[in-house]
Amino acid sequence: MTFSVQVKVMPLKELLDPQGKAVMGGLQSLGLTKVSDVRIGKSISLQVEAASPDEARQIAEEAGRKLLANPVMEYFEIAVN
Amino acid sequence: MTFSVQVKVMPLKELLDPQGKAVMGGLQSLGLTKVSDVRIGKSISLQVEAASPDEARQIAEEAGRKLLANPVMEYFEIAVN
Repeated sequence: MTFSVQVKVMPLKELLDPQGKAVMGGLQSLGLTKVSDVRIGKSISLQVEAASPDEARQIAEEAGRKLLANPVMEYFEIAVN
Repeated sequence: MTFSVQVKVMPLKELLDPQGKAVMGGLQSLGLTKVSDVRIGKSISLQVEAASPDEARQIAEEAGRKLLANPVMEYFEIAVN
């Protein structure tokens, strides 16, 4: 079976996110003053061939650990559909 | 109230995604051969000050339209928590 898996890679909460800061400045100068604490990461969608949702999640976790996220600066979350 | 809003910005399905292609190649050469159709977009988290979840969603939609997504190449989805 093929599962659709979403991997969300975000900057660690302890770190500054200058890209997010810049986007927040942009939003506020567009008049969107009710927005704060903008953080920007990556959203990666994969199709994974696996026997079960658990196996698909395992494969996606391996992908996250080995390539998709840099653990020094980022964490990742996985959602299997 | 403050709502935590996630905006997912992805390349349009009709378009090639060279970054995703490159990452898929990387995963396969790491031995993750069960992964296909990798697409890479942005995941943006915002804190939005609003009276209701609907209002928070509206503000995030305006942010997506005005700044976060380029409609020529990308679409976006919003999730309010």
